[in-house]
Amino acid sequence: MSHAPTTTLEHRHRRVRDELRGRNLDALVVFSRPNITYVTNFTGSSAIVVVAMDRVWIITDFRYVTACRAAQEGEHACPGLELVVVSGSYEAALVDLIGRLGARAVGFEAAHVAVSRHDWLRRTLRQAGHSLDLVGVEHAIERARLCKDAYEVATLREAARRLSGVASQVAEEIAPGRSERDIALGIDVRIRRAGFERSAFETIVASGHLAALPHARAGDRTLTEGDLVVLDFGGVYDSYCVDLTRTVSVGRASQQARDVYGAVLEAHDRAIAAVAPGQSRFAIDQAARDLLTARGLGEAFGHGTGHGLGLEVHEGPRITRRISDQESDDEAVEPGMVFTIEPGAYLPGWGGVRIEDDVLVTATGVEVLTNVTTELLEL
Amino acid sequence: MSHAPTTTLEHRHRRVRDELRGRNLDALVVFSRPNITYVTNFTGSSAIVVVAMDRVWIITDFRYVTACRAAQEGEHACPGLELVVVSGSYEAALVDLIGRLGARAVGFEAAHVAVSRHDWLRRTLRQAGHSLDLVGVEHAIERARLCKDAYEVATLREAARRLSGVASQVAEEIAPGRSERDIALGIDVRIRRAGFERSAFETIVASGHLAALPHARAGDRTLTEGDLVVLDFGGVYDSYCVDLTRTVSVGRASQQARDVYGAVLEAHDRAIAAVAPGQSRFAIDQAARDLLTARGLGEAFGHGTGHGLGLEVHEGPRITRRISDQESDDEAVEPGMVFTIEPGAYLPGWGGVRIEDDVLVTATGVEVLTNVTTELLEL
Repeated sequence: MSHAPTTTLEHRHRRVRDELRGRNLDALVVFSRPNITYVTNFTGSSAIVVVAMDRVWIITDFRYVTACRAAQEGEHACPGLELVVVSGSYEAALVDLIGRLGARAVGFEAAHVAVSRHDWLRRTLRQAGHSLDLVGVEHAIERARLCKDAYEVATLREAARRLSGVASQVAEEIAPGRSERDIALGIDVRIRRAGFERSAFETIVASGHLAALPHARAGDRTLTEGDLVVLDFGGVYDSYCVDLTRTVSVGRASQQARDVYGAVLEAHDRAIAAVAPGQSRFAIDQAARDLLTARGLGEAFGHGTGHGLGLEVHEGPRITRRISDQESDDEAVEPGMVFTIEPGAYLPGWGGVRIEDDVLVTATGVEVLTNVTTELLEL
Repeated sequence: MSHAPTTTLEHRHRRVRDELRGRNLDALVVFSRPNITYVTNFTGSSAIVVVAMDRVWIITDFRYVTACRAAQEGEHACPGLELVVVSGSYEAALVDLIGRLGARAVGFEAAHVAVSRHDWLRRTLRQAGHSLDLVGVEHAIERARLCKDAYEVATLREAARRLSGVASQVAEEIAPGRSERDIALGIDVRIRRAGFERSAFETIVASGHLAALPHARAGDRTLTEGDLVVLDFGGVYDSYCVDLTRTVSVGRASQQARDVYGAVLEAHDRAIAAVAPGQSRFAIDQAARDLLTARGLGEAFGHGTGHGLGLEVHEGPRITRRISDQESDDEAVEPGMVFTIEPGAYLPGWGGVRIEDDVLVTATGVEVLTNVTTELLEL
């Protein structure tokens, strides 16, 4: 169970219900796990949630019943919750529940249900004589999740504080002769000891020429004097994800390493300086990209500048290049959005640099949630 | 990249193509990550695979191109592989590729593609003037994965050997006053040091009355003299998952603890003794269930006896109760199947016991892949 207070859940339910009214729907079937957590605090591995106008049902199995009931007794209870315990299949329980709703039109998360499951639902509802409309809905809850509420901001701030603590210790893991894999394990242990439930993704330790691969896995390579090492790690704290990258030098850094590092750091600082409410997310990316291009590293920066953080480690908003010339209706960043700023430069055969922090858009500008030196450490 | 030899991949491709011919399809679009690994060795986080009669395409993005190309140079190369590097969206690259195939009928994994993605594909193919049939297919690759090939058996055997090594060390983690969370971290570190890529799921350490919850998370509770502690953990080795549970006593076990443990152990042994080629998976479950029922613990055993292991930690075959009286066409277990045997007994307010091993169905009977004492350890 996650720990959003009841009043926060009430507010989230209101938003979902406003969406439903706007679309003339009586209820929404929620299949996505992060979306389920967002509206109910449920964090188990299996559930289907139905949000109707006056109630919220969780369909789950015997494994989570005790935890659900216990959660309903505290200050994090989900308002209007009814528990449906699955005896046969989840699908059959859902059809039964939808039948009992007496609804005319029910939305479902079209991006989070497989074709075969949806076909079965539609067929079974028809066979059971229910004539309601099943309407595919996209982004209903994801849109609400874009701007974090006060509970989420507090959680992400605390998570970022803890991850910064881990980052300030990683120097202790770096030594010539140690393998990337060992260092990754050392970081993962520090993440858990810092109070995170788990690492938010497979920790990246990419050294020497391997640092030129933005998504290299930590492998058997051992560190050598002169290596740059990209360390990219994250943690899940009370269901919320934070993500941080630093690049360090094993021993003295070469002039080229300093130059590339300096350019990436300046791109990082420019992008953060560009963050403000109403600013285009494409313009934030452009701020980093223009700086790297001016330093001859435009081609070396192959990915986007950042991604949203929250119940998922990659969510909206995407801080990327504008892909086409089309107008975008979700271009501006808004207060409450939390995302990474992580420019990088990758030179095949040589190595790479990435520097990543997590930022919150405030009413007047930006707050950098992570806090650890961005100087090039020579260890 | 996973490490199945080229000849093994060839064999798997033949099976998929036989399926395609049987269904009059020219190609299959594969969305599921474990299925993608099964047919190509690809282990990155994003790809779509298309298996046609003469070739296999991987659609992926720049992050995985270097690793894909490198993998094609060794003895684990995927036969007939063509790489498509995504520049815009995965969906657009897929539509473009399907268009180029000149196919009449193309299958897609209906259980692994979301309704919205499928709608977009269908609409875009039509708009692009392609008149082919898109046909939902289920279980095509999952069925092949049910019986492990020689490479998979060797991998799972080695993984189980390593996990048994971890299990034989867990006694060192148990001490009064230690928290469940600390013990879980200790086990996770041992799993990584044993050569696993990662834990196969969130390690369960459930102590005292919390052991009555079969899927409890490791929390802040500290161990006390007299506790039973359920330790359930797994690892991923070269992409393959193994899973093991032992229940230990902190200090001297009570008579009730011995009785419940003894019953669960006997149920575990009976179920393993029931495993043989041609045996019904329901009968294997029944063997465990009958023993527990005879000991007055039938109601205390709320889950199935086992689940398949392979590229997923929960896959077919499911060793469960027969749900209805219907004949089942996938009832018998066959040589090459690998699954867990994990009966348990959970008494609310008191605690629980679970004992889990991994078994392989052989030509003549059963091989227990995991190997660590099943005696009740008093630590």
